[in-house]
Amino acid sequence: MNGAESLVRTLLGCSVDTCFANPGTSEMHFVGALDRITGMRCVLGLHENVVTGMADGYYRIARKPASTLLHCGPGFANGIANLHNARRARSGIVNIVGDQATYHRPFDAPLTADTEGLARTVSHWLRTSSDAAEVGRDAAAAVQAARAAVGQIATLILPADLSWSAGGRIGEPLPDLRAPAVDPHAVHNVARVLRSGADVLLLLADQAVLAPSQRLAWRIAQATGASLLASNTNAHMARGRGRVPLERVPYDTAQAIDALRRYKHIVLVNAATPVGFFAYPGKPSLQIAPGTQIHVLSRPDQDAQDALHALVDELNAPHAGLPEARVAVRPQPGEGEPTPEGLARTLAALMPDDAIVSNESLTFGRALHGPTHAAPAHDWLNLAGGAIGDGLPVATGAALASQGQRRVISLQADGSAMYSLQALWTQAREQLPCTTILLNNRKYNILIGEYRNVGATPGQTAMSMLDLSNPGLDWVKLANGLGVEAARATSLEACADLMRQSFAQGGPFLIELVI
Amino acid sequence: MNGAESLVRTLLGCSVDTCFANPGTSEMHFVGALDRITGMRCVLGLHENVVTGMADGYYRIARKPASTLLHCGPGFANGIANLHNARRARSGIVNIVGDQATYHRPFDAPLTADTEGLARTVSHWLRTSSDAAEVGRDAAAAVQAARAAVGQIATLILPADLSWSAGGRIGEPLPDLRAPAVDPHAVHNVARVLRSGADVLLLLADQAVLAPSQRLAWRIAQATGASLLASNTNAHMARGRGRVPLERVPYDTAQAIDALRRYKHIVLVNAATPVGFFAYPGKPSLQIAPGTQIHVLSRPDQDAQDALHALVDELNAPHAGLPEARVAVRPQPGEGEPTPEGLARTLAALMPDDAIVSNESLTFGRALHGPTHAAPAHDWLNLAGGAIGDGLPVATGAALASQGQRRVISLQADGSAMYSLQALWTQAREQLPCTTILLNNRKYNILIGEYRNVGATPGQTAMSMLDLSNPGLDWVKLANGLGVEAARATSLEACADLMRQSFAQGGPFLIELVI
Repeated sequence: MNGAESLVRTLLGCSVDTCFANPGTSEMHFVGALDRITGMRCVLGLHENVVTGMADGYYRIARKPASTLLHCGPGFANGIANLHNARRARSGIVNIVGDQATYHRPFDAPLTADTEGLARTVSHWLRTSSDAAEVGRDAAAAVQAARAAVGQIATLILPADLSWSAGGRIGEPLPDLRAPAVDPHAVHNVARVLRSGADVLLLLADQAVLAPSQRLAWRIAQATGASLLASNTNAHMARGRGRVPLERVPYDTAQAIDALRRYKHIVLVNAATPVGFFAYPGKPSLQIAPGTQIHVLSRPDQDAQDALHALVDELNAPHAGLPEARVAVRPQPGEGEPTPEGLARTLAALMPDDAIVSNESLTFGRALHGPTHAAPAHDWLNLAGGAIGDGLPVATGAALASQGQRRVISLQADGSAMYSLQALWTQAREQLPCTTILLNNRKYNILIGEYRNVGATPGQTAMSMLDLSNPGLDWVKLANGLGVEAARATSLEACADLMRQSFAQGGPFLIELVI
Repeated sequence: MNGAESLVRTLLGCSVDTCFANPGTSEMHFVGALDRITGMRCVLGLHENVVTGMADGYYRIARKPASTLLHCGPGFANGIANLHNARRARSGIVNIVGDQATYHRPFDAPLTADTEGLARTVSHWLRTSSDAAEVGRDAAAAVQAARAAVGQIATLILPADLSWSAGGRIGEPLPDLRAPAVDPHAVHNVARVLRSGADVLLLLADQAVLAPSQRLAWRIAQATGASLLASNTNAHMARGRGRVPLERVPYDTAQAIDALRRYKHIVLVNAATPVGFFAYPGKPSLQIAPGTQIHVLSRPDQDAQDALHALVDELNAPHAGLPEARVAVRPQPGEGEPTPEGLARTLAALMPDDAIVSNESLTFGRALHGPTHAAPAHDWLNLAGGAIGDGLPVATGAALASQGQRRVISLQADGSAMYSLQALWTQAREQLPCTTILLNNRKYNILIGEYRNVGATPGQTAMSMLDLSNPGLDWVKLANGLGVEAARATSLEACADLMRQSFAQGGPFLIELVI
């Protein structure tokens, strides 16, 4: 058994059975091992950022890590942006990176690069194997790190000679890493604050916005009069009927401060203190008013559900029904010119049961959140790290994680779609039930807004870097070129017709919605 | 004057007048400064790897650095692969990277990342400015580093608050950094070896394969009987009529050793000792036979032309005519099924004067080199760092550097084209005279070869990661979707017709050649 075979067998033994791959020469022995050992599902991406983004989407739905197979140096670098997003999403991923053979590295062949230095920037766990006999052990440690209660990025670098050398040994699965226990003092303190009668906000993030935690938070809110908000950025929210209609802290700092200033106390449940995505001249970084008191119920590395459970017990909060009445009537699809509100209504009207939404709609999408509470229960996946280009890969990985059994709807801005459009090809190859609503406004609208924040209207030079209309991107042709059926809609009625058509058939479809 | 304005004025004062850009929020003040200050040509790429690849191609033709404008962390990471290639190509580039404001960074907003750690992996020169008053000085130092005799990657990270803060001062241009002087002892030693009568090879790389150095090497070869070869990987060769018909060291290690074993002495002129791209079980890393003696005339950081001049003087080598007769007759275009030899003849027959070839044709292209010596004089740009996806961006940057006055021909493999296809959009936007010959074999053929090197035939799982035919990529639609006119050819005659059509008109064109 060579090192590569011990690696594949160890991964399978640790229940890592999906491999998103964009291999190169230094990975060929691993590919060879996959040929000889059955059980690993291999999914090809035509760019590494598609590969890492798929692994992120897979984790969010499967709640267990997949492996990626990436090429040394620049190959890994190509996948960093979506590893950054996955890190912010707290998704667990096991990256396997082939590298130059140990004895070949000193000769500095053209593709030799600082793979470790690159991996260090996004990995919670990083190791370069040094002996074929240890590859299995190293792989088991990588899986343990990725499977931690809060998912982590684990990167195992495998010099090619360890892959092909004999002496491989299968690594034993290692015990689960548990989250640090909830602090009873923190629970007690938060209960005291909640009983004080002051205006209190429970700010929920990460696991706290999934369904079981939401229900606990709702009980606390009903029992104490506290308010609930989700932090602005959440990788994965449970939404739709039967879930708590959580609003989010607004993206814009002035609006966020306005929304938060009425609370005397903000209790963080796996959330960070609200902070702007970026700094702006003369504006504060933190989005809380002076005098607001911050309390930590649970840190991001703790178990939010445990913490909320402990708080429910401490408060003796009774069961509380969810506000079904607010969303009992499904709206009619929107009509006429595409507006965010109209598209949201159309989505709420037509979304199939148990769908998954991958949202990278950016400026157009900020208004989509509220009205889609009226849709059937669904999972809403958001760009968590701000590195644009995760929407289509995350949708693809999520579809694979749900075994093609759930409809995945991408709400995708045009500019950011261009960073990972290759994901559409994988959707076609795997015949995944992915419907992409491509919001084509032919500009980097988010940046035009940011330019205005700078205090001016973009001039000719600025617009040469912010406008995408010359030439316009033809998303129907791009999708077709990648093997995905597609059509253009300029009205909400046409968009609704195409959505119905796509939801009724298998395989991927792209709707270019001109906005 | 704010920091961003001082930066723009410093760049312009240092003759950096082209900016390849894919900006984000933290760069908006720089974009704003570009609006207020005239003189910088800004070119948008829809992905950072297109931006950095364009800057590489620009340098190779303009022989001076452009700037790039990149977003923090993951934005920079997206451009690393082509910065790696540029580093191997010894191209000078000034990267301007906006980052979180200094006081905002500790809050770890979602897009906060280790920009310095990422930049360190590919930069010769790296600095994060710490005061608006120093931004100009830092920018001048960055340009000095990039403009070094052998080009370098210089990365200046600019926290957003330094961009918008007042107190900017224009940096004075700094003196040119000269290459280390040629060592007279090395020249003397090599002259002695050349006079010894033994079989000697001059192995040329980098600047040594440009036209002036080639002529000097040819004089030495004619005077001494030495042989000439180019190293396998060269970013930029002067080729075609009037140039020395240099062959390259073969890519395959066994073939390379065969080609080199007849030489008792190998003289390195800016070249490295030949080494395989990768290691293989049981094969040596170095591609030279035991007993071959290696001599260094000039290191990669020295001036090859100076070194060859000194050697010509030392040997008193007379002027020598180039072997025009070998290439006096232009071939007829190829016919029938596309073969590498047929395509090479077609190219040699139809290539316009003073063209630029951007070659990322990989497996199909290895045989294109020889026959194209019969073409008119042209520049041949090669993937230098092995990170696939530089061909189309380099072509785009080269076209911009030649002010749209020279025809640029991309010889582009399909799999690698998918890493940076967004470059076609910039070709359309700038209406560049770029002709892409997209070699569509619907597989990662180079990897199928590498898999066979592992000693087996790819099985079903391996082919799921090496085959691109399900679904097939439709490059005509992809090009059209990006605003580029395109057509498909399945014969060399059809390819020749489309080449003639494209060469006769302005703007970009893509020929999908099914091979």
